[in-house]
Amino acid sequence: VGEFDLIERLAAILGAPPAGVRVGIGDDAALLEPDLVVTTDLVVEDVHFRRATTSPVDLGWKALAVNVSDLAAMGARPIAAVIGLALGPGWSETEVEEIYRGVRACADAYGCPVVGGDVSRSPALTLAVTAFGRTAAPVLRDGARPGDLLAVTGRLGGSEAGRLLLEGLVAAGDAGAALRVRHRRPTPRLAEGLALAATVSAMLDVSDGVASDARRLASASGVAIEVDLDALPLQPGVAAVAAAVGRTPGAFAATGGEDYELLVTLAPATLAAASVPLTLIGRVVPGLPGVSFRGVGATDDLAGWDHLRER
Amino acid sequence: VGEFDLIERLAAILGAPPAGVRVGIGDDAALLEPDLVVTTDLVVEDVHFRRATTSPVDLGWKALAVNVSDLAAMGARPIAAVIGLALGPGWSETEVEEIYRGVRACADAYGCPVVGGDVSRSPALTLAVTAFGRTAAPVLRDGARPGDLLAVTGRLGGSEAGRLLLEGLVAAGDAGAALRVRHRRPTPRLAEGLALAATVSAMLDVSDGVASDARRLASASGVAIEVDLDALPLQPGVAAVAAAVGRTPGAFAATGGEDYELLVTLAPATLAAASVPLTLIGRVVPGLPGVSFRGVGATDDLAGWDHLRER
Repeated sequence: VGEFDLIERLAAILGAPPAGVRVGIGDDAALLEPDLVVTTDLVVEDVHFRRATTSPVDLGWKALAVNVSDLAAMGARPIAAVIGLALGPGWSETEVEEIYRGVRACADAYGCPVVGGDVSRSPALTLAVTAFGRTAAPVLRDGARPGDLLAVTGRLGGSEAGRLLLEGLVAAGDAGAALRVRHRRPTPRLAEGLALAATVSAMLDVSDGVASDARRLASASGVAIEVDLDALPLQPGVAAVAAAVGRTPGAFAATGGEDYELLVTLAPATLAAASVPLTLIGRVVPGLPGVSFRGVGATDDLAGWDHLRER
Repeated sequence: VGEFDLIERLAAILGAPPAGVRVGIGDDAALLEPDLVVTTDLVVEDVHFRRATTSPVDLGWKALAVNVSDLAAMGARPIAAVIGLALGPGWSETEVEEIYRGVRACADAYGCPVVGGDVSRSPALTLAVTAFGRTAAPVLRDGARPGDLLAVTGRLGGSEAGRLLLEGLVAAGDAGAALRVRHRRPTPRLAEGLALAATVSAMLDVSDGVASDARRLASASGVAIEVDLDALPLQPGVAAVAAAVGRTPGAFAATGGEDYELLVTLAPATLAAASVPLTLIGRVVPGLPGVSFRGVGATDDLAGWDHLRER
């Protein structure tokens, strides 16, 4: 059973959210009345990171940053977070403190103080972060309409390229340092999310690759989406890494996880009002819910990341 | 390093809560302005439960129930919860669905719907639950004053006795079934917490044993507390289990974790106003912060539960 099948089945068991909850399971975050947003993410050793390639301080940063990214994708500003630490064997006190220094650095950078938590032993280090925020104009995944444009902030593929470099699976070129940083220290697009909230029709963060995340958007909105692989904005160095592993740049960038850019749809008339640089990468068209791909790599395997499967 | 030392060091790294946060790390839950309460708890396989003695549905119930208990101890009513599932090897889909049926049963029983979550692989099944609530009259741990009485709801020692029975470490008497249920299906004292909130000076839930939890209360309030071990209300069958493992009943009941009763302090004049049955088990006295014990077992080892140590 895959990650998304399992989530659907568990969501069915948990039942529909009560009247006061505007959005339950299935968006970047839940939306509680009137304007409170809640999101939670797990970071598990050897699933989401490897000790050999991730410093403790980067790990702490990332554990909070991915939650801030979910808040950003709802158009929400952080209030606070709580953190559960399940401490695996072989982690020193100093390393654990370094993890929390990374959490603190991210908390300070995005105004998301950590106000509580829990600690336990565990066979593998696990960080369970839950973050809360408030939004005046929540942006969900279900607002895309035929005729809208599909766009993305920033550049794609950098985190996956950085991961391959860090694991020694490809050799580094000139852009290697920036790619590694991109994987280690993701930058939630908080200011961008807040700025785009009033303009876009749907928004989510690119955590599992544009291909996967566009599918979620299409499913939630009940629309067909076309993605132009040739239009994806690549981080410098990504094309070379993609070539080194025998993949086309567009397919690589569309399936590489953890870029944490924002994927949005918006009506063409509102594009001029978007105060954030965006790259147009496709469009919402009439048709059954789903995603089709155009350009070089459109026939490649474009399955996204699944945290229940082995790498 | 122990659990509580580590928490203090990590809390120092995370820093003081910002102005809008009324209570950060160190109480049952954090209190965000104006009345929002947040708590998080981890449940890790072979740390908090064993598969051999815990059914999936009971595990799900317990994972949410311990969070509801924290809300109750703040005098808060649940709004919602989110749940992170790190899925260890060897758990079938059916078992995972049973876990979520247990979560749902607890959610329905206490009005705490689960509105979001995350799933991942992991070497050991871990449930990370974060629950939110609202309170009109938050009750913290720092309000105990010399002259107050120390009291507890319900009866103690049952969960630890049930655990020993379930693990086959002692033989069951007539009370065995009730003790096992007590361990498997803890009952958060939500109605009691709401009813006591207007009356008591300090409150917390008994998760690690009265001895430990009274120490936390003494430390947070900066007071000395005397606990009468002979006064502890024992669940039927606890004395026999304590005797079977060579411990005095009072020490056993004071150190057995997971009873999830409420431990409170209150001024003698307000005792009559408490609309919930309470057992008086000690008092707050002048002196340096700390706990002293009286009665049979007062010289026993009264260290509490520590989730970072091996059993």
